[in-house]
Amino acid sequence: MPYRSPLAELRFHLDHVAGYAQVTATDRFAEAAGEISGAVLAEAARLCDDLAPLNRVGDLHPARLENGAVITPPGYGDAYRRIAEGGWIGLAAPPEWGGQGLPQTLAVAFHDMLAGACLALELNPLMTQGAIEAIDRHAPPDLRALVLPRLVSGEWCGTMNLTEAQAGSDVGALRSRAEPLGDGRYAITGEKIFITWADNDFAGNVCHLVLARLPDGGPGSKGVSLFLVPKFLPNPDGSLGARNALRPLKLEHKLGLHGSPTAVMAYEGATGWLVGPPHGGMAAVFTMMNNARLGVGIQAIGAGEAALQQAVEWAMTRRQGRTSGPTGTIIEHADVRRMLAEARATLFAARAIALDCAVAIDMAAATGEPAWGARAAFLTPIAKAFGTDAGHAVADLALQVQGGMGYIEETGAAQFVRDLRVTRIYEGTNGIQALDLVGRKLADGGEAAMRLIDEAAETARTARTVLPDLAGPLWQAAEALREGTDWMLSHPGDRGAGAVPFLRAFALVLGARAHLVAALADPARIPLAAVHIRRLLPAHTGLLAAAREGGDGLMAVTPESLAP
Amino acid sequence: MPYRSPLAELRFHLDHVAGYAQVTATDRFAEAAGEISGAVLAEAARLCDDLAPLNRVGDLHPARLENGAVITPPGYGDAYRRIAEGGWIGLAAPPEWGGQGLPQTLAVAFHDMLAGACLALELNPLMTQGAIEAIDRHAPPDLRALVLPRLVSGEWCGTMNLTEAQAGSDVGALRSRAEPLGDGRYAITGEKIFITWADNDFAGNVCHLVLARLPDGGPGSKGVSLFLVPKFLPNPDGSLGARNALRPLKLEHKLGLHGSPTAVMAYEGATGWLVGPPHGGMAAVFTMMNNARLGVGIQAIGAGEAALQQAVEWAMTRRQGRTSGPTGTIIEHADVRRMLAEARATLFAARAIALDCAVAIDMAAATGEPAWGARAAFLTPIAKAFGTDAGHAVADLALQVQGGMGYIEETGAAQFVRDLRVTRIYEGTNGIQALDLVGRKLADGGEAAMRLIDEAAETARTARTVLPDLAGPLWQAAEALREGTDWMLSHPGDRGAGAVPFLRAFALVLGARAHLVAALADPARIPLAAVHIRRLLPAHTGLLAAAREGGDGLMAVTPESLAP
Repeated sequence: MPYRSPLAELRFHLDHVAGYAQVTATDRFAEAAGEISGAVLAEAARLCDDLAPLNRVGDLHPARLENGAVITPPGYGDAYRRIAEGGWIGLAAPPEWGGQGLPQTLAVAFHDMLAGACLALELNPLMTQGAIEAIDRHAPPDLRALVLPRLVSGEWCGTMNLTEAQAGSDVGALRSRAEPLGDGRYAITGEKIFITWADNDFAGNVCHLVLARLPDGGPGSKGVSLFLVPKFLPNPDGSLGARNALRPLKLEHKLGLHGSPTAVMAYEGATGWLVGPPHGGMAAVFTMMNNARLGVGIQAIGAGEAALQQAVEWAMTRRQGRTSGPTGTIIEHADVRRMLAEARATLFAARAIALDCAVAIDMAAATGEPAWGARAAFLTPIAKAFGTDAGHAVADLALQVQGGMGYIEETGAAQFVRDLRVTRIYEGTNGIQALDLVGRKLADGGEAAMRLIDEAAETARTARTVLPDLAGPLWQAAEALREGTDWMLSHPGDRGAGAVPFLRAFALVLGARAHLVAALADPARIPLAAVHIRRLLPAHTGLLAAAREGGDGLMAVTPESLAP
Repeated sequence: MPYRSPLAELRFHLDHVAGYAQVTATDRFAEAAGEISGAVLAEAARLCDDLAPLNRVGDLHPARLENGAVITPPGYGDAYRRIAEGGWIGLAAPPEWGGQGLPQTLAVAFHDMLAGACLALELNPLMTQGAIEAIDRHAPPDLRALVLPRLVSGEWCGTMNLTEAQAGSDVGALRSRAEPLGDGRYAITGEKIFITWADNDFAGNVCHLVLARLPDGGPGSKGVSLFLVPKFLPNPDGSLGARNALRPLKLEHKLGLHGSPTAVMAYEGATGWLVGPPHGGMAAVFTMMNNARLGVGIQAIGAGEAALQQAVEWAMTRRQGRTSGPTGTIIEHADVRRMLAEARATLFAARAIALDCAVAIDMAAATGEPAWGARAAFLTPIAKAFGTDAGHAVADLALQVQGGMGYIEETGAAQFVRDLRVTRIYEGTNGIQALDLVGRKLADGGEAAMRLIDEAAETARTARTVLPDLAGPLWQAAEALREGTDWMLSHPGDRGAGAVPFLRAFALVLGARAHLVAALADPARIPLAAVHIRRLLPAHTGLLAAAREGGDGLMAVTPESLAP
């Protein structure tokens, strides 16, 4: 059975869990009200169902570099054009530039489905969307007018060029240089690595957003600036002029995502335009990365969905051993049902968190209320880290369900595991996400955190008579998380050592709250909510214990003792 | 830095944790006493260090099938001959057949190191050792005399042929047939899949142990018999005669272990000899599989060790961000140290369990005491499932530590993840191991389980004044595990639904006990023990909650709701 976009599941999330109605009730997003959003999602689902066969194609026919240009897998070009011509790249982009101005939440739901169809291809519009947002927010008006309509329409693509060999998580260590040319333009020189979709053979131009240091840029991240460096230099009317002095040196041979070219890029005095103020590159980068972090979370959820669908299909047809249930297949074995149910429950939780984050982004944009912005900011690292851990773990469970067959490449189970693995690394490793959560995101004294914990406790209180077996554990977990958060707030020096388990515990509680809301809305959802709350949520105890253990004990494990 | 066999670590385990001195104190293994075992291990370490470069070679130059014969990766043949000529295949085999008769524990330690050097190649002697044991225990004398000296010397190799397309975890569903030829031999017909090292180009013959059904064999696993079916029919003097009617049809394209050929095997009226009584094949299979299950556990630990060494090396040289520690590298970041320390602590725990199991096997063989046999039987599924989960998880953490570079195939981090993934599946999936633990291995009323729990509690009591921060949590966890075990014993119908979390909780407690023993023996080991006991062991709470949740809730999650 081929991949089916989880349309009904997404609509349930929007209607009953994520509070999407708040978004369409705002003036800003009034056009998305009524059946509009539903129609958009249904159309997206049709498109994504069609594109799903490309997923294997990209794995079997990787993107390759020939004569300095990237050749993409068969079918990717046509698929890209369908995505672009359908207006999907500009779904949430400003109408001023040809976008549809719809809520980010719809774009996130679209990317969930597109990543389920073909993660490697989905990365391309995701990168462009990040570029659109950064340019829209930080570039001067003439540059915006020149570039944005073409990015929004998909005529051109966008990329992010941050990483260098010695500057990964520590972006500020970069060495690329930018020399003013005296005419408002700059000459960019340097080498960037891990550049996703650095080139392609289906869009007219590629707009690279490149971090580099101006001659008077100080050391570290405060001295870096952002530049738009296009593959072809556009004429004032937008037509393409000379080829710019940049080129992909090689494509990486990666564990997965073979359809998506990841390049080492050389800038050899390439012409670029400043985006944002001199030495203000990091602010623009954060715009791109915030967008991309939620996007990476949701893409992993979408790809995990595809992996899970395949495993469920296998478990409902494979016969092995005595089974008592109606299907007579291995899905009747308790441990197989456990794996699938835990995977489905985890995906539900991760999707709920990502859509909660998306709704908060839309509400912040529509209302300007700081609390919505704070909620979005707090949820972003959780949506990224938990979403990608969840998507990869689901793919791993899906492979396990398929046993020996799962280990054979032809079934496709292994590809999901390979493809998804990098989502836990790029756009900031999940460790970096956790450090962001316990650092920057607790810098408000825990206000955003406590608001979310209060909501979880409140949902538990609401459900305590109807669903006491679910409400009780959620309430206890929320209170344990409150104590854990207080501990984090009062132990700033120990936060780093506990960041990852703390983030995970937080996600389990948020996911449990979402499951309980779903169970209250639809009794058919109670069994899955029970799997999360009674089988997965109890892990919060161990996670919070680890989170509160502090850093001294860790650092007492010497490097020498790690490599005996 | 290349892989270094963990010689000192293994010696510490044997001398201070696993109680290996008991083994060499027996009459049976008196020859291994004194410095003999240490010398054997040191020699093994030298060999394995030498062979480590083959690991990448096998990944880059996979085994392939040409004209019906397997061509192995460059260098594998020479390496195999070094292993065979060094007497390593017969390390623990009976002297009667040319073996060295040394303890299994030493063979297990050797395989730990060999798998760290090259997992794909290590599988070959591991398979042969399983065949040696099954043939030695179940085959008639003339067959043993003909075959065993050649398997022990490595002149010939051995394989296991159990799985068929419709018969994986449910071996009894197999369809291969065996027709008596009237001269004591049989004609075997059928197709087997997932046959590890089904053929090679470096050994003179391959002895396939094939499960098939005699004409009067009933349905299910009670009707299957085991046959020795050699690639070349041996003459009575052991020289090779005609080619037998069997052939590899194709090699699988696997996620990993590319150096190890995994074949679909066709038996087309191939000549075979009965091993064990008619319809008694499963007993012989369990001999092979018991050996192989511990072997798979330890191989995953060995390969995890190699992955971890690489990650530690990376973390001690990679500079990124501000660090305060002495190295100035990312190993000073708390979350990097966390990943490495948790990985090292997990490997220590898994290795301790595997070696505990190995010592119990030796003690059972040397003393004949049923309690030792019961201990080995109980520990075997834990050693396999926890060992492989641990090895794979360590490789996953090792990749994560290396960030984007870890995702690039050239670094080798991804290969460890790919190679190790199948260890959680083959020789019985880890779900099957857990079902064995809560089924067959609790069938003694919990006697073997409670003895291990008592030991953990006793170790905690011993340490309560010297190391109270470690002894206290271990004592509590042991008592919680006791309650969980009691619950399992009194809820047979719910065991399947809780088997996997129960096995994991058991392993965490066993690992914690081993860490505490190590910390008592060597104060330098206290920090790592603290990481396990204070950061990882607390997960037992959530695991035991899940283990006791029962099956009804799981089965209430309908197949339809899993694939929305």
